[in-house]
Amino acid sequence: MDIATIIGMLVCAGLVLFGIVNGDNGIDFSALKNFGDLPSVFITIGGTLSCMFMSCNIKEYVNNLKSYTLVFKVPKLNTQEMIAKIIDLSNVARKEGLLSLEEAAGDLDDQFLKKGILLIVDGTDPELVRGIMETELSSIEGRHGKVISFWEQMASMGPAWGMIGTLVGLVNMLYNMQDSSKIGPAMAVALLTTMYGSLLANWVCLPATFKMKKNNAAETMVKEIMIEVLLSIQAGENPRVIEEKLKSFLSPADRAATGSGEGGAEE
Amino acid sequence: MDIATIIGMLVCAGLVLFGIVNGDNGIDFSALKNFGDLPSVFITIGGTLSCMFMSCNIKEYVNNLKSYTLVFKVPKLNTQEMIAKIIDLSNVARKEGLLSLEEAAGDLDDQFLKKGILLIVDGTDPELVRGIMETELSSIEGRHGKVISFWEQMASMGPAWGMIGTLVGLVNMLYNMQDSSKIGPAMAVALLTTMYGSLLANWVCLPATFKMKKNNAAETMVKEIMIEVLLSIQAGENPRVIEEKLKSFLSPADRAATGSGEGGAEE
Amino acid sequence: MDIATIIGMLVCAGLVLFGIVNGDNGIDFSALKNFGDLPSVFITIGGTLSCMFMSCNIKEYVNNLKSYTLVFKVPKLNTQEMIAKIIDLSNVARKEGLLSLEEAAGDLDDQFLKKGILLIVDGTDPELVRGIMETELSSIEGRHGKVISFWEQMASMGPAWGMIGTLVGLVNMLYNMQDSSKIGPAMAVALLTTMYGSLLANWVCLPATFKMKKNNAAETMVKEIMIEVLLSIQAGENPRVIEEKLKSFLSPADRAATGSGEGGAEE
Amino acid sequence: MDIATIIGMLVCAGLVLFGIVNGDNGIDFSALKNFGDLPSVFITIGGTLSCMFMSCNIKEYVNNLKSYTLVFKVPKLNTQEMIAKIIDLSNVARKEGLLSLEEAAGDLDDQFLKKGILLIVDGTDPELVRGIMETELSSIEGRHGKVISFWEQMASMGPAWGMIGTLVGLVNMLYNMQDSSKIGPAMAVALLTTMYGSLLANWVCLPATFKMKKNNAAETMVKEIMIEVLLSIQAGENPRVIEEKLKSFLSPADRAATGSGEGGAEE
Amino acid sequence: MDIATIIGMLVCAGLVLFGIVNGDNGIDFSALKNFGDLPSVFITIGGTLSCMFMSCNIKEYVNNLKSYTLVFKVPKLNTQEMIAKIIDLSNVARKEGLLSLEEAAGDLDDQFLKKGILLIVDGTDPELVRGIMETELSSIEGRHGKVISFWEQMASMGPAWGMIGTLVGLVNMLYNMQDSSKIGPAMAVALLTTMYGSLLANWVCLPATFKMKKNNAAETMVKEIMIEVLLSIQAGENPRVIEEKLKSFLSPADRAATGSGEGGAEE
Repeated sequence: MDIATIIGMLVCAGLVLFGIVNGDNGIDFSALKNFGDLPSVFITIGGTLSCMFMSCNIKEYVNNLKSYTLVFKVPKLNTQEMIAKIIDLSNVARKEGLLSLEEAAGDLDDQFLKKGILLIVDGTDPELVRGIMETELSSIEGRHGKVISFWEQMASMGPAWGMIGTLVGLVNMLYNMQDSSKIGPAMAVALLTTMYGSLLANWVCLPATFKMKKNNAAETMVKEIMIEVLLSIQAGENPRVIEEKLKSFLSPADRAATGSGEGGAEE
Repeated sequence: MDIATIIGMLVCAGLVLFGIVNGDNGIDFSALKNFGDLPSVFITIGGTLSCMFMSCNIKEYVNNLKSYTLVFKVPKLNTQEMIAKIIDLSNVARKEGLLSLEEAAGDLDDQFLKKGILLIVDGTDPELVRGIMETELSSIEGRHGKVISFWEQMASMGPAWGMIGTLVGLVNMLYNMQDSSKIGPAMAVALLTTMYGSLLANWVCLPATFKMKKNNAAETMVKEIMIEVLLSIQAGENPRVIEEKLKSFLSPADRAATGSGEGGAEE
Repeated sequence: MDIATIIGMLVCAGLVLFGIVNGDNGIDFSALKNFGDLPSVFITIGGTLSCMFMSCNIKEYVNNLKSYTLVFKVPKLNTQEMIAKIIDLSNVARKEGLLSLEEAAGDLDDQFLKKGILLIVDGTDPELVRGIMETELSSIEGRHGKVISFWEQMASMGPAWGMIGTLVGLVNMLYNMQDSSKIGPAMAVALLTTMYGSLLANWVCLPATFKMKKNNAAETMVKEIMIEVLLSIQAGENPRVIEEKLKSFLSPADRAATGSGEGGAEE
Repeated sequence: MDIATIIGMLVCAGLVLFGIVNGDNGIDFSALKNFGDLPSVFITIGGTLSCMFMSCNIKEYVNNLKSYTLVFKVPKLNTQEMIAKIIDLSNVARKEGLLSLEEAAGDLDDQFLKKGILLIVDGTDPELVRGIMETELSSIEGRHGKVISFWEQMASMGPAWGMIGTLVGLVNMLYNMQDSSKIGPAMAVALLTTMYGSLLANWVCLPATFKMKKNNAAETMVKEIMIEVLLSIQAGENPRVIEEKLKSFLSPADRAATGSGEGGAEE
Repeated sequence: MDIATIIGMLVCAGLVLFGIVNGDNGIDFSALKNFGDLPSVFITIGGTLSCMFMSCNIKEYVNNLKSYTLVFKVPKLNTQEMIAKIIDLSNVARKEGLLSLEEAAGDLDDQFLKKGILLIVDGTDPELVRGIMETELSSIEGRHGKVISFWEQMASMGPAWGMIGTLVGLVNMLYNMQDSSKIGPAMAVALLTTMYGSLLANWVCLPATFKMKKNNAAETMVKEIMIEVLLSIQAGENPRVIEEKLKSFLSPADRAATGSGEGGAEE
């Protein structure tokens, strides 16, 4: 569980609720009831969800909605740890030969790295290894991109359906202005849909896409490193050169933390 | 028929209608008549359609409008099924020679794959096969892109003509404010065009473009696989390597489902 | 004359006029006078045109404005006809030699194709033919792109100057609110500039850019075909292969219509 | 001096002024005083300029602001004249050898072309000539791009600070609504900042960026021609081929005007 | 400390404050209290910050916020000085051999340049040097890009949460319109969140992203020069050619200032 994301989401909700209940006469929880309106929820959230449903088949739709849970997970990737593991693998390959990698790959969590190593152990042609791994990477990126654009499209649909709801409410209100004391509340209800749409976009969808994009970029970078280094291992390059290559991907701060005491270009 | 799209479209319409008829005194269907205004339809939908007409010749215009029906069709592509078929073809080619593919290609639905196989059977030069197939693919993408941008342009035209209609209504209203009881309804009518424009964009056009883009990306991916694999078959590559290549395009979940029991890199 | 564009433009104008004159008491042409205001035209259309003038020299400005007439012309390109002609040329070259193309090129309308053929007849080096033709194509695209961005910039300037005009009108109105009966009409006049700006963008400029972009893409595709095929002809490739290449550019529907009865990959 | 730009700028200002002073009772210059408000200028123009200042160091800031004068200059580039000059140079090189170019380059205005010729005269390796010239070109484009994005950023800052100013004005107004006769003028003043911001963007900044972009594209095209042709001259290519290459960059209309009577591909 | 940025930020704040306190009756500091509202700060700034928190883990979040201090620092890069240093290094390498660079690199501040030199001294393969250095550069750009997009995302979140806050305030106001004297101030408070959001975006975030982007582009250019020149030094190219290459990156004005009196292509 990524506790930061949950805290951020709850704090944000709390701030909005505080803004609602806070009034001239201090906290007034009765204001909350003015901000809940079921038909407004139907037209904004329902309109958005049903339009997104139009653009998918059912299976994709369910998967895309489910993918939201990813936002609450800490990505398994740990660049430094992964780099340390690859350096180990390159040392194993150097000392005991490529075939010894099969055993070392047995306990790898990362399916991508594992697949690459098994291809090497199989004696696959280097060009083919690169081809298969790059196809797999671009296919992974394609799947991630589909999920990200689902949530981005929803983030653009939310405010649009909020505005449609507000227009519906305004037109209804404009036809019923006989009782002037009801104009205010009617207008308030009309504005609620715009608020719901904005919250859907800016509270639910956009922070999720920001996070997904960031994680996707990090995962792509790590997988690109893996491809480069797997090919270096296959080519029998010096583990020190491989380590140097790997470190190019790290920030100076992270570099120190990988802590292979003897390494470094100064030797 | 893609039932999801139709359901999504109808549910969305239902939610808007519910938002319209739902009032303080429960459901009131008489509100519906306030939301229908023929001149507003003329200026918003008519303005949008006639401006899109300006940008096409008649034949293209009709084709582009007709292309909307694609949104309600389930795309014929089934990546897994297609991959299984190509693996069959590669086995046929390996065992019985390239010429035997001609017969096997006879019952293929996919014209693109069929054309590629016939080029191979003809003994066309590999570079030329790639050239012709890639030209065909980019030409298909070009045609799809034209349809998608037609609906995207319409999605941007809708709200613009809605606003023009609202301005026309507002100016007329502002010149006729003697009878204050009519200001509300006049303003309501003026706002209807904005609502129509938003519905045109967010209910009709945008979900369609989302779906078309998604289907186009999937079709392009499958056709790219086809090109790669056709060339592998022509080069006489090992069916197991071809299978490995094909699987790189699949998600881990789909991979299991292709179910070639014996396959896998672990052998 | 592209009759569709003119019809689209007139129908659109008609719909706006209908929206203006249509009122509660049926058609009322006196409303039209409320929608014409010369100072509003000056500030919106004049502001837009003079700012576009700032960004060009006089000759370019006149040429860019003139280029609008292209929108009313049917583009001379006919992909199918052109492809038929190139197949003829490839047959001529095959049977009678490259030099015989000079005569055949005499009656070509298309200057681009003609230039390419004359370069081949001259015995120019293939790489140089490609270089010159691609430079020419990218130079044509550059010129088209300049015109398209002129109209796109005007489409963004229109609403901006419309808003400036509305702000001018509103400020004037807000200083003169003593006579409350004049507030409505003053506000109406202020809104006219926004309407003029929107019409300039969405009725005049944007449909034109949609059309120009589409025609430009089609022309580029045809010219790219020409380059590929000219080089195939120069290389003495088989006319049947050339035909196959050409057909990759066509949609399945158009392919049938090119009607070279005997052709096709099945042979 | 590019008289067109100055005329465009003045005409535009005149149209806005006319829109301001033109009223129901004819021209009324007293309205002008309602449109000048120093604190509004401070918050809109000052806010924009100080935020742009935040994003630069002082030297860059002054240079970027100074670069606005470029908009009023006719660019020195004359594609046709330049092409004629290069054809001369290629003839000189052909007849008298590459070393003779040094003298011919003495009276060139264009530092870029001059540098290239001197590199050739020096006997620099062709790949190195291309490398140095392309680095120089991309470095020139980088500098131009920095100036263009400065003005584009200012064009986006202007309306934003205009809106902030309007919000400040509105909040102040809403706290002082006792004297209802002052509400109108207070609101008018609040709107002025939005107007100033729009004028800053659409009158000052955007037409300038349109022009800068256009000139930059033209300069880049000419410099790309120069690089190509310099390498052709160095390679000792036929001046007629060089001329053909050069003409590919010109529009058909300009091509006739270069007027090298004997040239042409038909020979 | 980059004094310009601090001055710009303070001047901008001063102008907004002046706009607030400046009224019809001269300066009136009591207006300031109308512009401070803690719940509005909570919903706008708090909503934005907590949503940005959702999209990061805690460590990244703190680092991204800290990175704002970079805006107040003068970037260490001095292109001219750096170029002079590289020319020195190339002379050292030419005269005393590549190994002598190790000592010369000892006192370099720039870790990137230092790493490159040490790779050369180590006798690393040129292709590998390029590979490692380009990976490091793209990794640096990736890290910068992450920070820049954090502030760009915050710049888009600010106005969105400002609008949500305004909607909350409006709905509350519309339910409490009995006391008409309170409508004005309630509306004023509702607008404050929009103002806070705009200030967050246009005063805090956007100028920072403008500066970060500019500095990042400059740093990337310098590092690209370094890579090119390191490879030239390793290849033993003539220092004069290296100088020529380096100067291609400079503007004509800066070129004079590098002041290597004897250099220049005219020799």
